[in-house]
Amino acid sequence: MSDISNMVRAKVLIDALPYIQQYYEKIVVIKYGGNAMTNEKLKQAVMSDIVLLSLVGIKVVLVHGGGPEISDTLKKMGKETEFINGLRYTDAETADIVRMVLAGKVNKDLVSLLQEHKGNAIGICGIDGGMIKASRFNGEVDLGYVGEIEDINPEPILKLLKDGYIPVIATVATGENGEVYNINADTAAARIAAELGAENLILMTDIKGLLREKDDESTLIPVVNVSEVPYLKKQGTISGGMIPKIDCCVEAVRRGVKRTFIIDGRTPHSILIELLSNDGIGTMFI
Amino acid sequence: MSDISNMVRAKVLIDALPYIQQYYEKIVVIKYGGNAMTNEKLKQAVMSDIVLLSLVGIKVVLVHGGGPEISDTLKKMGKETEFINGLRYTDAETADIVRMVLAGKVNKDLVSLLQEHKGNAIGICGIDGGMIKASRFNGEVDLGYVGEIEDINPEPILKLLKDGYIPVIATVATGENGEVYNINADTAAARIAAELGAENLILMTDIKGLLREKDDESTLIPVVNVSEVPYLKKQGTISGGMIPKIDCCVEAVRRGVKRTFIIDGRTPHSILIELLSNDGIGTMFI
Amino acid sequence: MSDISNMVRAKVLIDALPYIQQYYEKIVVIKYGGNAMTNEKLKQAVMSDIVLLSLVGIKVVLVHGGGPEISDTLKKMGKETEFINGLRYTDAETADIVRMVLAGKVNKDLVSLLQEHKGNAIGICGIDGGMIKASRFNGEVDLGYVGEIEDINPEPILKLLKDGYIPVIATVATGENGEVYNINADTAAARIAAELGAENLILMTDIKGLLREKDDESTLIPVVNVSEVPYLKKQGTISGGMIPKIDCCVEAVRRGVKRTFIIDGRTPHSILIELLSNDGIGTMFI
Amino acid sequence: MSDISNMVRAKVLIDALPYIQQYYEKIVVIKYGGNAMTNEKLKQAVMSDIVLLSLVGIKVVLVHGGGPEISDTLKKMGKETEFINGLRYTDAETADIVRMVLAGKVNKDLVSLLQEHKGNAIGICGIDGGMIKASRFNGEVDLGYVGEIEDINPEPILKLLKDGYIPVIATVATGENGEVYNINADTAAARIAAELGAENLILMTDIKGLLREKDDESTLIPVVNVSEVPYLKKQGTISGGMIPKIDCCVEAVRRGVKRTFIIDGRTPHSILIELLSNDGIGTMFI
Amino acid sequence: MSDISNMVRAKVLIDALPYIQQYYEKIVVIKYGGNAMTNEKLKQAVMSDIVLLSLVGIKVVLVHGGGPEISDTLKKMGKETEFINGLRYTDAETADIVRMVLAGKVNKDLVSLLQEHKGNAIGICGIDGGMIKASRFNGEVDLGYVGEIEDINPEPILKLLKDGYIPVIATVATGENGEVYNINADTAAARIAAELGAENLILMTDIKGLLREKDDESTLIPVVNVSEVPYLKKQGTISGGMIPKIDCCVEAVRRGVKRTFIIDGRTPHSILIELLSNDGIGTMFI
Amino acid sequence: MSDISNMVRAKVLIDALPYIQQYYEKIVVIKYGGNAMTNEKLKQAVMSDIVLLSLVGIKVVLVHGGGPEISDTLKKMGKETEFINGLRYTDAETADIVRMVLAGKVNKDLVSLLQEHKGNAIGICGIDGGMIKASRFNGEVDLGYVGEIEDINPEPILKLLKDGYIPVIATVATGENGEVYNINADTAAARIAAELGAENLILMTDIKGLLREKDDESTLIPVVNVSEVPYLKKQGTISGGMIPKIDCCVEAVRRGVKRTFIIDGRTPHSILIELLSNDGIGTMFI
Repeated sequence: MSDISNMVRAKVLIDALPYIQQYYEKIVVIKYGGNAMTNEKLKQAVMSDIVLLSLVGIKVVLVHGGGPEISDTLKKMGKETEFINGLRYTDAETADIVRMVLAGKVNKDLVSLLQEHKGNAIGICGIDGGMIKASRFNGEVDLGYVGEIEDINPEPILKLLKDGYIPVIATVATGENGEVYNINADTAAARIAAELGAENLILMTDIKGLLREKDDESTLIPVVNVSEVPYLKKQGTISGGMIPKIDCCVEAVRRGVKRTFIIDGRTPHSILIELLSNDGIGTMFI
Repeated sequence: MSDISNMVRAKVLIDALPYIQQYYEKIVVIKYGGNAMTNEKLKQAVMSDIVLLSLVGIKVVLVHGGGPEISDTLKKMGKETEFINGLRYTDAETADIVRMVLAGKVNKDLVSLLQEHKGNAIGICGIDGGMIKASRFNGEVDLGYVGEIEDINPEPILKLLKDGYIPVIATVATGENGEVYNINADTAAARIAAELGAENLILMTDIKGLLREKDDESTLIPVVNVSEVPYLKKQGTISGGMIPKIDCCVEAVRRGVKRTFIIDGRTPHSILIELLSNDGIGTMFI
Repeated sequence: MSDISNMVRAKVLIDALPYIQQYYEKIVVIKYGGNAMTNEKLKQAVMSDIVLLSLVGIKVVLVHGGGPEISDTLKKMGKETEFINGLRYTDAETADIVRMVLAGKVNKDLVSLLQEHKGNAIGICGIDGGMIKASRFNGEVDLGYVGEIEDINPEPILKLLKDGYIPVIATVATGENGEVYNINADTAAARIAAELGAENLILMTDIKGLLREKDDESTLIPVVNVSEVPYLKKQGTISGGMIPKIDCCVEAVRRGVKRTFIIDGRTPHSILIELLSNDGIGTMFI
Repeated sequence: MSDISNMVRAKVLIDALPYIQQYYEKIVVIKYGGNAMTNEKLKQAVMSDIVLLSLVGIKVVLVHGGGPEISDTLKKMGKETEFINGLRYTDAETADIVRMVLAGKVNKDLVSLLQEHKGNAIGICGIDGGMIKASRFNGEVDLGYVGEIEDINPEPILKLLKDGYIPVIATVATGENGEVYNINADTAAARIAAELGAENLILMTDIKGLLREKDDESTLIPVVNVSEVPYLKKQGTISGGMIPKIDCCVEAVRRGVKRTFIIDGRTPHSILIELLSNDGIGTMFI
Repeated sequence: MSDISNMVRAKVLIDALPYIQQYYEKIVVIKYGGNAMTNEKLKQAVMSDIVLLSLVGIKVVLVHGGGPEISDTLKKMGKETEFINGLRYTDAETADIVRMVLAGKVNKDLVSLLQEHKGNAIGICGIDGGMIKASRFNGEVDLGYVGEIEDINPEPILKLLKDGYIPVIATVATGENGEVYNINADTAAARIAAELGAENLILMTDIKGLLREKDDESTLIPVVNVSEVPYLKKQGTISGGMIPKIDCCVEAVRRGVKRTFIIDGRTPHSILIELLSNDGIGTMFI
Repeated sequence: MSDISNMVRAKVLIDALPYIQQYYEKIVVIKYGGNAMTNEKLKQAVMSDIVLLSLVGIKVVLVHGGGPEISDTLKKMGKETEFINGLRYTDAETADIVRMVLAGKVNKDLVSLLQEHKGNAIGICGIDGGMIKASRFNGEVDLGYVGEIEDINPEPILKLLKDGYIPVIATVATGENGEVYNINADTAAARIAAELGAENLILMTDIKGLLREKDDESTLIPVVNVSEVPYLKKQGTISGGMIPKIDCCVEAVRRGVKRTFIIDGRTPHSILIELLSNDGIGTMFI
């Protein structure tokens, strides 16, 4: 690929121009996870995408989950996971380890990578600056220190953006009594995007997007109006693991985020292509 | 070319990243002229290049000469040009027409084009804000109202840049008694670049660059240290019409501009490729 | 007049005090034209008035038409003017020449004069910074590239004012497809004054003001409420060439300009006297 | 005088223009005293002069002494003045009364007058903001609480100027142990002007200026270079009560004030004429 | 008391923490008067309290009356006070003396003391910057130049606060025709607090606070809702000299001041204890 | 202790005043460690001290080591520590765990505690914003990923301070190739203090300070000039574990920190007492 002609180079850059104009000084929240986070090559591609976007004037906020690192560390520390009705129970000690892994390992690895790509990143978590306040998730089953967001204070993120940094956010939070909660990263990203008045929310997944026919990637639905979601759920087009992710998209749009995307993190540079070309890849919710 | 793959698109954008970082918030002065100004397609390409560069955070200043528009208008107005020893003599009336064409036609055409490309441009000339003060050029032959720069006040340009505009500069100036002078655009661009503390000065020409063997474009000299210039002149490598252009480059470097380039305006997007890829085209003076 | 006593000097200055206080940091738009633009002595007086007003803290914006310069240049360029029902038809080529003369000759002459009077002026036209957007004037007869204002973007003017410059405005505009339109300078001045939230709009004319008895200057009407205008038209007091000028005044007042004046440009320093003394000269519309 | 013609009005204003330009945003310190302070009409003229100067962008600082008010109050309070070798001795109680009269009566009267003339004034004394620190004047005879300036802190004045106020300064000061000192107003004005980096210092007096022949006002010396002062003293041209005033002028010029003036406070509007016309009245020290 | 243990020191400081947080950058207006102003030791304590509060980020505004200084000076100046129906009549001359004493003696004494305690204070009165406009108090009996507040311009105080000064305010005012009015300091403090949007108003008095049983300090009422005041008056709990003071409190609360306090100025450091500990002393109106 | 009298309260607060003035807006770097970090009660005391100091306008930066948490986690993860010549060898995996514990556990615990005390803290490590660059410590024995500071970029800390946060710093760093280094927290605190131009550096230890006679706390040396240190080492007064700590103090003073302290972290509120009272506890190096 070293033989890309200058004409092609120029064309690609010029093609990107209207998109750069559109997103200039706008906030884009990227939820990073899945394969894009475990595959080393994809990881490098994501990092360079983020640095590039931030350089052309887009205010990128990176929200991440923990990937397999949490399980690894829990295992190494001999901490056995309890399951209740098939769902993992997070006791206080586990919550503490989750926080340590997310805020001390995954977060700092990402910051370190962004710095290597000449991005200027600072990593914080929901505890810093009192950013995320949570309470115990009130579901049918008590899952322990799994938190529900009570309040988001966007100031620490806004100040880091103003100071020229790329904020990297680990989604752990504090409860009313100082207890630690683990927060689902998709949900946190959606709420953060809403509080920041973000232009876009991008959820990186390991699927092509929303498919009309399961397993047939050629039936990708490029745009979904959030009002169609209930119907698509009923119809079964949205099902299984897709449901919570798409609920996040709907929530974000409802709370004022202009566009949310589910994109395929397995394709290198999918963020860049989604944002800076007219080849939309993945599904957009509006 | 509509079938550029997403991988190529991503690669080109990512390749541009270090160059965008390098020029971020830096001033680049572009002297626009020659074929790039008369060929409609090249013109469009230059405009989109400038808008893109300005969008990714480079502070572009466009300095222009008049091309054939001046001769056209002089001819239409029945103004005959007098020649002394083969050099055009500029009487007061001609100087006035030159100013009118440069500041009222060429300048506004460029501003209009940049606006169409969604750039935010404002066109001024050396008279506005007292930007260029000149006196009669003191050469062997009196050429009339051909001016020599006495003083550059960079404030109007710096304020337009700060206000977010792309300044487009017509190189006419005022003398001590309010008389109008026409200033050579290459010279003016070099001096303006120096006064602005520009990172780069780019002179667009109709040649490939400096060639070791005349007429053999494969012998392009990519980099010249300004200290080598006297030798290259003596040797005849720099000769004829190249001499004043290269003198401008030397002058600009001597006065503190980091790098100056002579690039081939006949190649579409040569500015973009020169600045945002590692395919240097043309000759760089350092 | 060199023997003005110090007491008189002091008195005049002190008399001006309340007016200076009233206009401090307020925007005053002056439409410059007529004799005040062709008579050299009047021209000098206007320039010194503007510089003085700007020095005592009034934010002056100078809007100008083209005077006889346009006809002169059209004639010199052998461009014959077509008339339709007695009105001049502006073809594309003529519009281009008009723009060149207004933005490149008249505008720069004024800037140059203001600079000579130690004013700090920058001349722009409706194309710069996308300031005036126009469309083809939709009257009974097609007059070609005579424009109707679609939109005014006051930002370039506001930024020049904030940066300490006196903006000098040539009233040419761009259409949707980049075509050039010539705009009536009175109309443009009225709309610009409204968009800027100006305190005053001053139209310089070659008449004393609105007279109750035609040809009897002693019957000057000093103040007119815009609600009286329809009656004054019906009555014939406002007639002929006065109608469009007074319509501009009414329009400006309706859109929020506090006061608009029609003043006699043939009286030297009429602007200064109108603004800085209690000898109102001309007619004020409120 | 109500019949000043508009031409004269315009001429006077235009004549003032270069002076307004010269002093724009510059600091001028005026020491107010003598007849101009006791004669009601002169007082009004000084106030309107100061408001006008401040309106056209000159940063005026008014420093005042106490005039006959101090003696009046001392007398009313039955406080007898002690004299030592013919010089008034200021005991602690007298110093206290002096402070009260200067800061509470004279100062507030001036502020009140300036407000009536629509000036925006705030009156402070050397104690406010720790502006003037003094110690006991160390002369041949102990004069009690007559102070010598140890240090000037110009910040309170600079902040009032920046906030848009006309500072009115009563020249009392604090000593190391909180004791009150009375400071000679001429001396204080000179030192304040120096600390503020003032453009001008104007001392209002009851004489025409420095005269070559005593009692012959036609022999006024318009400009004195401070280096000539010793000779003029030796020669007797500078003598008596003039000596300390002129020493203040010399001191101010030596410490960096560009120009200092001794002007005749008995002439109405002498400040305005001195600053805004080319009729210098009084003597300038450079 | 030199043997306060470090543990006690730390505890006191830590105890103050939540109060410092609560008042951080808030405005607190203190009306200073009574014993706290005449007793030298109490005076020193008040000054150090104010400097401390200002240092920990509270924006303190000190409003003062005149205490016995006014009577003293009037007496010394042989000015006899006229009484009408038992109320002091203030003629123009007396008003002038009152202003002189308040603005020139009491005010400067306080500024001087604050400076000695390393506070950065500036003393002004209602005349400075046109801060307090008043008219003749329109009561049953004409009391002369006793003023009623017409208008408060809070700008001079807000600017002094922004510039980092502690404003010290003497409550004299100007009338429509420049005449001097003496204003009741409690009333002025209440109105100033309201105009500044103050968090707190503190009136220093010579009583413990509002007592349920007269003369029994153990029956102090710590908190009063302003709606209870009419009942408390009817009941006689609020009577005599307390009435106008409490009316000020009510007025201030009604105009938006969050809390107003009547505290005992006879207790050293009562301000500090009221604001920075949970030992409320005195009576709070909400 | 609930019965501290109001007089004592006031006295303590007033006593603190000059210290608050001295440190106002100054930077104080606190190296937190030892007992103060493991004892729950001491920990709470430190947190409230820091919040109080930050509230009274001192810019506190908290630098922390890892305490026993690192060993605990290493042990739990079955990571055995290798010793070379009695010194712990840090392999890459250990360095990674150290980073995770410091930046994800200890750091977030401290941030959480400060937030509970109503402080506004953000926790970062040397990787964030490229704050600490390190290389392999070049000692006699290779200790693996133990880093030597190459460069400190104080910007992230300065920006957090400007944004109103208390920065909490975990001392891990990045090497040239992105590798993780553990940095000695005392050393890092000293260098950070120097780069920030801090007023004070406070190292919390588990000793009384520098004692003239070992084990006799009554021989505490309150002040040491850094020039005396070599002699005190030679003499044996400074020995053992004290040496590196005192070297940090010397280094910090040499690099421009005004004062550095070794204080006894075992005494509750020792920071508060050291900074806000004249009971210096511990040893000060100047």
